[in-house]
Amino acid sequence: MLSRQENAAQPFAQRVDSIIKRVEACLDEHLAGSDQLSHAMAYSVFNGGKRLRPLLVHASGELLDIDPDLLLAPACAVELIHCYSLVHDDLPAMDDDALRRGRPTTHLQFDEATAILAGDALQAMAFEILASEPALTARPNSALRMCATLARACGAQGMAGGQALDLDMEGQRPDKTALEHMFALKTGALIRASILLPACLRPELPAAAHADLTKFADCLGLGFQICDDLLDIEGETAVIGKTAGSDQALDKATWPALFGCDPARSRIAELAAEASICLDRVGGNTEALSWLTDRLLNRDR
Amino acid sequence: MLSRQENAAQPFAQRVDSIIKRVEACLDEHLAGSDQLSHAMAYSVFNGGKRLRPLLVHASGELLDIDPDLLLAPACAVELIHCYSLVHDDLPAMDDDALRRGRPTTHLQFDEATAILAGDALQAMAFEILASEPALTARPNSALRMCATLARACGAQGMAGGQALDLDMEGQRPDKTALEHMFALKTGALIRASILLPACLRPELPAAAHADLTKFADCLGLGFQICDDLLDIEGETAVIGKTAGSDQALDKATWPALFGCDPARSRIAELAAEASICLDRVGGNTEALSWLTDRLLNRDR
Repeated sequence: MLSRQENAAQPFAQRVDSIIKRVEACLDEHLAGSDQLSHAMAYSVFNGGKRLRPLLVHASGELLDIDPDLLLAPACAVELIHCYSLVHDDLPAMDDDALRRGRPTTHLQFDEATAILAGDALQAMAFEILASEPALTARPNSALRMCATLARACGAQGMAGGQALDLDMEGQRPDKTALEHMFALKTGALIRASILLPACLRPELPAAAHADLTKFADCLGLGFQICDDLLDIEGETAVIGKTAGSDQALDKATWPALFGCDPARSRIAELAAEASICLDRVGGNTEALSWLTDRLLNRDR
Repeated sequence: MLSRQENAAQPFAQRVDSIIKRVEACLDEHLAGSDQLSHAMAYSVFNGGKRLRPLLVHASGELLDIDPDLLLAPACAVELIHCYSLVHDDLPAMDDDALRRGRPTTHLQFDEATAILAGDALQAMAFEILASEPALTARPNSALRMCATLARACGAQGMAGGQALDLDMEGQRPDKTALEHMFALKTGALIRASILLPACLRPELPAAAHADLTKFADCLGLGFQICDDLLDIEGETAVIGKTAGSDQALDKATWPALFGCDPARSRIAELAAEASICLDRVGGNTEALSWLTDRLLNRDR
C-alpha cells in the first residue's frame, strides 16, 4: 500500500485499479460462504460493477487526508448497499429487470426469495463491516458516526424512500423540483454518504467546509442520475449492459424524457460547474474528486 | 422512569406494560413520516405484536444491572429488525401469507414493492437508532459492539441465512440437527442478539458468564420456535392471529410435524430446564429473564 505522500504524487487515474482490487479482495473475503444464499450475495456483488462509490470514498478520503486503511471498510459498505439496492430494484415487483450488466439479474439466476434475502443480508453485512473493522473500531466515535450516516442514507429519508417515490412517479409527469428531489434520495443519498463517510473521521472539519462538501456531493449525485437517464435513452444495450430504453418501457419519470435531451445536457454542465466551485471552496487535494467528477458527468456507460 | 433500585423491588410482570409503552413511544417517534413508505413502515411495526424481543433486552439488561436509558435503543432496534423480517417473510415469493396478527400483511395492505422497501428501510432504521441514540453514543465502544452484534444476527450467518434454509427445507425431511440449526439462525439469532446487546455494555463480563448467557439465549430461542410450530398445528386461527396450519399448507419443515407433538413438548421442557441452569450460573437478578422464559415456553399464542 502506498503512503499518503506517495499517493499524492501519482494521479488518481493511475491508482483506480489498485484501489478497486483492494476493495474487491476485502468484499471477496466477506462473501466466501458456500451456501446458496452466500452464492447469490457474491453473484450480486461481483457483477462487473465499476465500484464508483468505493472510488468516491477513497477520493473524498484523499481530499480530507485520511489514512487509506480507514477507507476500506466504508468503501466496502457503500458498495454492499449499492449492490443490495440493485438486487431489490430489479425484482419483479419493482423494475422487473432481466439483465444487469449483461447477466441475468439475481432473481432470475437464483430465485425471487433468494434475491430478496441476498439483498437483506448484503445490507446487514455493510453495517457489520463498518462496525467491526479493527482499523475503524479503534476510532469508535468516527465508526459510529459512519454507521449513523450510512443508515440514514439507506432508509426512508434516503435510498429506500427515493425508490418508493420513483415507483410512485411511473406514468406521472412530476415537475423538475419533485423529480430532482426523488433523484436526490434514490441515487443522491448513497453518493452523498460515499463522500461524507470519510468526513466522519474529521470531526474538526469546519461546518462551512462540510456544507460545501455536501453540496458538491449533491450536485455530483444529481448530475450522475441525469447522465444515467440520458444513457438509457441514447445508449445501446451492448454498451450500457442493461436493456436500453427500459425506463421508457416502464414509463419511468426521467429528466430527459420530461424536459428534453439538450436541456438535460445543459443541466449536467450546470451541475458540474457548481460541483467544481464547491469542491474548490473545500480546498485540499481535490485532484481525485475532480477527476472522478469529470468521469462521472462525461460518460458513455 | 423508575430507578434500578425501585425496578428490582417490583416483579417484572408488573413492569411489562410500562416498558412496552416506552418502547412503542420511541418507535412511534421514529415512524412519524407522512409518505406512503413511512405509513407502510408504521403499519408493519404497530401490528399488535407482543414486543417480546424488546422485553428480552430489558430483562437481560436487569440481569446485568444496566441503566434502562441505555436499553431503549437496542430494544427498538431488535423490534424493527423483527418487524422487517415479518414483512419480507410474508411476501408472495417467500411464505405468501395473507394474514399477520389478524390483519392483512403489508404487501396486501399496500403493495409488494412498498412492502419490500418498507422492510429494507426498517432494517436501516434499526442501525440508525443504535448508532445515533445520544445515551448510547456517549459509550461509543459499546454502541459499536451493539451494531456489530445486531448486524451479524441479521445476515447470512443469522436471520436471513435461516430464512433461506427454511425455504430450502420446504418439502424436505431434515434430521433434528439440521432442523435445529435452521431454527438457531432463523429465530434464534435475533433472540440471542436481544439478550446479548445489553452485554455489549459490560465488556468486563467474564467469558464464562457470557457463554452461559449465550447458551441460555440459544435454549430459549430454540424452545420458542418449537412452541411456535406446535401452536401452528394445535392453535386456532382466532387465537394465534395467523392462519392456523399455514406451515402444513406450505409443507414447511417443523419440529412437531417431523418428530411428533409429544416429543416436541418434551424437547421444550428439556430446553427450559437447560436454560434455567445456564441462567442460574450467570447469576445476578434473574427474576425478569426467568419470568419471560416461563412465559415464552409455556404459551398458547
